[in-house]
Amino acid sequence: MPSPNHDLSHISFDDLRGLLASILARHGASPQVAAILADNCASVQRDGAESHGTFRIPGYLATMASGWVDAAAVPLVTDAAPGFVSVDARNGFAQPALAAGRALAVDKARANGIALLAIHNSHHFSALWPDVEPFARDGLVALAFVNSMACVVPHGARQALFGTNPIAFAAPRAGADPLVFDLATSAMAHGDVQIAAREGRLLPDGVGVDRHGQPTTAPAELLDGGALCTFGGHKGSALAMMVEILAAALTGGNFSFGFDWSGHPGAQTPRTGQLLIVIDPSLQNGNNFALRIETLVEAMKQAGQERQPGERRYIQRAMSERDGIPIPRAELDRLRALAAAT
Amino acid sequence: MPSPNHDLSHISFDDLRGLLASILARHGASPQVAAILADNCASVQRDGAESHGTFRIPGYLATMASGWVDAAAVPLVTDAAPGFVSVDARNGFAQPALAAGRALAVDKARANGIALLAIHNSHHFSALWPDVEPFARDGLVALAFVNSMACVVPHGARQALFGTNPIAFAAPRAGADPLVFDLATSAMAHGDVQIAAREGRLLPDGVGVDRHGQPTTAPAELLDGGALCTFGGHKGSALAMMVEILAAALTGGNFSFGFDWSGHPGAQTPRTGQLLIVIDPSLQNGNNFALRIETLVEAMKQAGQERQPGERRYIQRAMSERDGIPIPRAELDRLRALAAAT
Repeated sequence: MPSPNHDLSHISFDDLRGLLASILARHGASPQVAAILADNCASVQRDGAESHGTFRIPGYLATMASGWVDAAAVPLVTDAAPGFVSVDARNGFAQPALAAGRALAVDKARANGIALLAIHNSHHFSALWPDVEPFARDGLVALAFVNSMACVVPHGARQALFGTNPIAFAAPRAGADPLVFDLATSAMAHGDVQIAAREGRLLPDGVGVDRHGQPTTAPAELLDGGALCTFGGHKGSALAMMVEILAAALTGGNFSFGFDWSGHPGAQTPRTGQLLIVIDPSLQNGNNFALRIETLVEAMKQAGQERQPGERRYIQRAMSERDGIPIPRAELDRLRALAAAT
Repeated sequence: MPSPNHDLSHISFDDLRGLLASILARHGASPQVAAILADNCASVQRDGAESHGTFRIPGYLATMASGWVDAAAVPLVTDAAPGFVSVDARNGFAQPALAAGRALAVDKARANGIALLAIHNSHHFSALWPDVEPFARDGLVALAFVNSMACVVPHGARQALFGTNPIAFAAPRAGADPLVFDLATSAMAHGDVQIAAREGRLLPDGVGVDRHGQPTTAPAELLDGGALCTFGGHKGSALAMMVEILAAALTGGNFSFGFDWSGHPGAQTPRTGQLLIVIDPSLQNGNNFALRIETLVEAMKQAGQERQPGERRYIQRAMSERDGIPIPRAELDRLRALAAAT
């Protein structure tokens, strides 16, 4: 949430979404792509995940202006097999590609029990949980994997190779918002290292290495040619590797170390791939899945876990829906100026 | 590997497998179940994963003698949907259930691109990687999830709820043994806590809590009504929860906290569930998957990662195939006595 000394404005979801769509369209996005990215970005801001909210708009515009990503791309959906949807994002953003393949993937999951939605040639610049939550709202279980850009050193290695490579998961609940989590396989978000550098704080042990692959707690050393570590040592590293395999090798997308954007100054978005696995739990006879989840949630509460995965976002979402979405007034002014500029 | 001061015998894989099958059959397993468990256990011992090898035979016999598990169960395979195989292990071990449903799941994955193999009413008492490696040898990608018994406290909670809940993954390589990993979502294996207690060593920070849910580094406090933590804090906890959802809620199996074996003294095996996701990567057009994996492995080596996931097991396997499988002589004598006993 914004720090309290900000001068905050509040804006409705629809107004923010419209404003963001105007900005993106004025800077080269097709109306379809602008609408999807604006909805995604406004949703993330509404839910309090500021690092991936309107804060990212300048990054979207820079990467679009660089010619690195095609913000007017029309995704190409291929019905690859009865349980396999493949989407070529055609060097566009990942969210329009997901939107293009989603209905077919849901149909396949309902018919077969499980389906793959494999996206390649795509740029993912947002949080991952908005990609999985809607499946759970349709009663489905979803897993998502996306690789990014080489900034994470494999456990025991010296050089960055993996992206922050998040994994997201969503499962429906009976009569409550879905259980949703989204976790980077890196020990820390890159943005948090930048904040530590600015504030002169040291990093915890095990978060990063310097340009020689040696452990460091100095954020400046990490940012100067160093890299993040994986979370949880060799286990997080194995999961990060799995994300490269699923999101890139399996989809036909680039590895996090496998693209060259040096000819596009201002480029910020990794051109990689994304994999979603969608499961229809209703096909297991005699097993009322959503009620089983309630049993699990109740047990987690009884064990002392006060907040369930995704719950903080739902609390912020309800506040935003009641009071409007909080944005620092200066930032809102900048956004309005961008919407007016050509 | 065994500590060098053991007096070691070496035994061939076939001899060890035959010996273990005799033991299991003499103590109540059907010939089919005995053969599958013996092959599994001998493979694990061959590959140097001693904690799940012949060391576990007394546990198998105790749990079988307690009446808690049916070692003569005949699994019931249901073709639930075009991409969904459901297996009721009928209170038997998980490995025979997997063997019963495996061929159908492979057929479905090859036809559809992806398939689910959901096992419930099952007991898993071995390592998880032997369940996924064979899929990768058939050119498929496999993910496996199994829940166990409440011994892990959710992040931020006070009481044990999750099992050690491992996740395993296997992917084929071109001209090399598959990439395979198998990671518990707990911070440490329960057996390693017992060893630390025996040797009078403290545990690292973050590994466990005492019976009041307070962090402890004393193994005795953990073992006396305490619990393990998840690896990687809230991230490992989210993954452990996901394993409960996939392996139990989705399959129709018990949660790790959802069974009562108090009426069966000697019972050691969790009666839960297991989920496998099997993917045929060849359905992505124009993407030579196994060659992409080689590119990734080469990059991991170049980055300084000397050993790839699974490699240590393959090295031990090759040694065992050359020299025989190393087992302490006293243990081999005990096994032979068990095979002779009725």
